[in-house]
Amino acid sequence: MFVDRLINGIIEKKNPSVVGLDTLLDYVPRSIRDRHAALHADPAKAAAEAIFEFNAGIIDAVRDVVPAVKPQLAYFELYGVHGVECFARTVARAREKGLLVIADAKRNDIGSTAAAYADAYLGETALGGGESARAFDADAMTVNPYLGADGIEPFLKNCDKFGKGLFVLVKTSNPSSGQFQDLELKNGQKVYEHVAELVDEWGDGRQGEYGYASVGAVVGATYPEQAKALRKILKRAYILVPGFGAQGGSAEGAAAAFDESGLGAVVNASRSVLTAWRHERWEGKYGEDDFAEAARAEALRMKSEINGAIGANS
Amino acid sequence: MFVDRLINGIIEKKNPSVVGLDTLLDYVPRSIRDRHAALHADPAKAAAEAIFEFNAGIIDAVRDVVPAVKPQLAYFELYGVHGVECFARTVARAREKGLLVIADAKRNDIGSTAAAYADAYLGETALGGGESARAFDADAMTVNPYLGADGIEPFLKNCDKFGKGLFVLVKTSNPSSGQFQDLELKNGQKVYEHVAELVDEWGDGRQGEYGYASVGAVVGATYPEQAKALRKILKRAYILVPGFGAQGGSAEGAAAAFDESGLGAVVNASRSVLTAWRHERWEGKYGEDDFAEAARAEALRMKSEINGAIGANS
Repeated sequence: MFVDRLINGIIEKKNPSVVGLDTLLDYVPRSIRDRHAALHADPAKAAAEAIFEFNAGIIDAVRDVVPAVKPQLAYFELYGVHGVECFARTVARAREKGLLVIADAKRNDIGSTAAAYADAYLGETALGGGESARAFDADAMTVNPYLGADGIEPFLKNCDKFGKGLFVLVKTSNPSSGQFQDLELKNGQKVYEHVAELVDEWGDGRQGEYGYASVGAVVGATYPEQAKALRKILKRAYILVPGFGAQGGSAEGAAAAFDESGLGAVVNASRSVLTAWRHERWEGKYGEDDFAEAARAEALRMKSEINGAIGANS
Repeated sequence: MFVDRLINGIIEKKNPSVVGLDTLLDYVPRSIRDRHAALHADPAKAAAEAIFEFNAGIIDAVRDVVPAVKPQLAYFELYGVHGVECFARTVARAREKGLLVIADAKRNDIGSTAAAYADAYLGETALGGGESARAFDADAMTVNPYLGADGIEPFLKNCDKFGKGLFVLVKTSNPSSGQFQDLELKNGQKVYEHVAELVDEWGDGRQGEYGYASVGAVVGATYPEQAKALRKILKRAYILVPGFGAQGGSAEGAAAAFDESGLGAVVNASRSVLTAWRHERWEGKYGEDDFAEAARAEALRMKSEINGAIGANS
């Protein structure tokens, strides 16, 4: 069951944070980019290969630090078919190295089409003649709830069948997330609170040994007050907290999503880890050839900062 | 400007309907599947090649009947990297044949990540050294509004810069679409009505020669009452109407989304066209080798049915 594997990883590594793989070509040190540009005539292929080498370096550097990585599909699709191939290889690499993979895809559609997405990322594809294969085979993925329960059902089915997990958008980390999510309903609830209630219901009967379910929720670190309230509504849902670091969410903000025993949430940082090699914090200590070591140092710093904030919180 | 190209196509072909390319391997006639299975050792590659041959046949058969096709990303991602390559080739084929391409991707994310999706589908990707390329290069795409305006802004920017279009989910065609979309707000509005108002605002200043904007809305054919009300709120937004045919939406239901002059909406059917070759309606007339002719006949039938319903409506 995904949620138990995630929590076991968090406990084992003493780290409730994950690294987002949102790699833009611009984050990759020039020496790597130049080498692949010389090797491949197609600049999109060269870009995707450079990004894969970078991602593989990050994965190897943080594999004993974090329980999971969260590749963001948009940054792979940006490089076209070669980018998507890089995504598939990045997922496989991370899983080979013992990391869980949360595909940040925010997919959503009506029933039969949602089933195709669920099979692509959390299940298997029928290929005729009784054959089937796993298209991308992540451990969990993010989904958008706007289409309601029948657009979520196929994902739940694959969570059950293949031991996978889901994180449903509830309250996102961006400045205008309130435009729809914070609308006040006739009954006094906010839209995101209503979504949270349903997400928690979807986890009913899907709890693992720690009482949490493989149906989680996305709640941004930039909204600590809401996170605090949502932690109470989301009794079963593990919370994925984006927006930490480069997006402006603080460790204290993220800490609001945790329960009293220090579980219940996992915090993601992407850019601050991926570009640590050129961040002023690490200036003089790491150069561009040390991007992986710099990422490891930043991931360890994040671990310590979040654990400190959770301790202070509980 | 996308919306003008769409409307010009609708007028030229006297057809406000489009064909959805939601091709499951199971829709492809056995002879095509078997041929590719014999050619390719990798069954996912064989599946993707069979689907491309099928899609190309459909495109060629309907190119003078419909103004656009709407490939659904989920059904390509289902076949992994080979499936995404098939998507890229399907888009290119349709555009070569003079058809507009609406990528049904329902993408959504926060600002910087939304920008990556916008660049991937409606813009261009920076590849270093001043080079750039178009990753998928559709004419328009569907997006999900749950994250609010700053998740939509990057798509709007590319609509302006590259002459592309957008269809924002407002009221989807599935049975549980009401679970969040129909929630009643404190001010008496439904959530989907509030979304519609904002979608229409996003079209302000983006209208073309017919008064419609390249920022459109998705409103399911299965909810004709809501479509009628939304046609009034959505003064500038062109409406994309899914759910016609196999999903149970009627031509009368779809007709509610049109204005008095027979413009304002475009209706999609996927499965009923793609699988016409095995539908009882065409039994005895078309067999599996005639899948493209059967699709053409079904697309012409849909055109006539919808034009009839619009005529009856106005």
